[in-house]
Amino acid sequence: MAHITDPKVIENTSMDIIDGLLAYKRWDDKFYPIVKRVVHTTADPVFAELLEASRDAVDAGIEALKKGCVIITDTRMAQAGINKKRLQKLNCEVRCGIDDPSIEMMAMHESMTRAAAAIRTQSALAPRAIFAIGNAPTALYELGELIEGGKIQPYLIIGVPVGFVGAADSKEYIKTLEAPFIVINGPKGGSNIAAGIVNALLIEASKGGEVLCI
Amino acid sequence: MAHITDPKVIENTSMDIIDGLLAYKRWDDKFYPIVKRVVHTTADPVFAELLEASRDAVDAGIEALKKGCVIITDTRMAQAGINKKRLQKLNCEVRCGIDDPSIEMMAMHESMTRAAAAIRTQSALAPRAIFAIGNAPTALYELGELIEGGKIQPYLIIGVPVGFVGAADSKEYIKTLEAPFIVINGPKGGSNIAAGIVNALLIEASKGGEVLCI
Repeated sequence: MAHITDPKVIENTSMDIIDGLLAYKRWDDKFYPIVKRVVHTTADPVFAELLEASRDAVDAGIEALKKGCVIITDTRMAQAGINKKRLQKLNCEVRCGIDDPSIEMMAMHESMTRAAAAIRTQSALAPRAIFAIGNAPTALYELGELIEGGKIQPYLIIGVPVGFVGAADSKEYIKTLEAPFIVINGPKGGSNIAAGIVNALLIEASKGGEVLCI
Repeated sequence: MAHITDPKVIENTSMDIIDGLLAYKRWDDKFYPIVKRVVHTTADPVFAELLEASRDAVDAGIEALKKGCVIITDTRMAQAGINKKRLQKLNCEVRCGIDDPSIEMMAMHESMTRAAAAIRTQSALAPRAIFAIGNAPTALYELGELIEGGKIQPYLIIGVPVGFVGAADSKEYIKTLEAPFIVINGPKGGSNIAAGIVNALLIEASKGGEVLCI
């Protein structure tokens, strides 16, 4: 059946439609590419209103990626959704410990979720990192405790867990910490959105150089 | 900070909330677990209204999974989101060819998207499979051509690509084919939802046996 098959045409047409949908408001120049990517990921303009970032968040994320940083996710899905070619060009790396057998044991012993245990272990190896949390509120609470205890100093926290139990509260909590943040207020979010935000930052961090990866 | 840390309590509380949100309507007993899981995945009750399935779809999916079938996805993200322990218990397997180097070459030679090329190649190896498409409308069009050409006979097509260009049309198209389908009408969808629907079917297929995987 007749349909558009050129990925570049699909992407560009889609971005034009999103520009139209979001034209009702003046957006901060630095923040707009993130907003646009999340609406592109979800096909839902409501996310433009739910996104919130600390003043320094986008710059902090881009600078860290330009230096070649570690990104830690709470799910294999978020990890899988991050563009590997772009990561490689910037010498960045994405890690996720959720299904390591040692994490399951640690979670059981310490009565914590696997997501929190994985964050504790991974952040001990990379106390300066970008954290992209798309699923588990408990991962955000663990990050908070580690920050308050002076054990880690994230470049950026992308806090977009999804769900009706704890997700919204965990995002309010993350906003009170001493760390740059990008969150989606309320219960909505997801690993696809966490990956989408990282991908938007990777595109911005690649600008200036000749990095073309779709 | 005080918060719920028991994953079972979080899941059960969340499902109770969703029961409340969806209580305005009588749902088909077989379809309801799918609806509920998608609302759980997205924290967005609007998906309950957008989901549509052919009459035989849920049964067809469950029966195929019980027999131990192949599931083919269009993205690594959907593949990553499908519960591996449940797959293993049912002797099912999930495959995705999107980033095979040969697929990139084939896509270039045949002027097709990588997603369509990957579907053509993977479905030649497993012409009877469940297809879970969360991203690429072109993957659904390719499936259609293969079905109409008599080359494949899917157990079930989960068609939930996302986007403002082509996604909604591709789902309308899939509904005209001779194959059981579950779709999300309109532009919304995503790899997380494709994985969520497979996971809901895996849970239903595991019932009766003692399969407990969170």
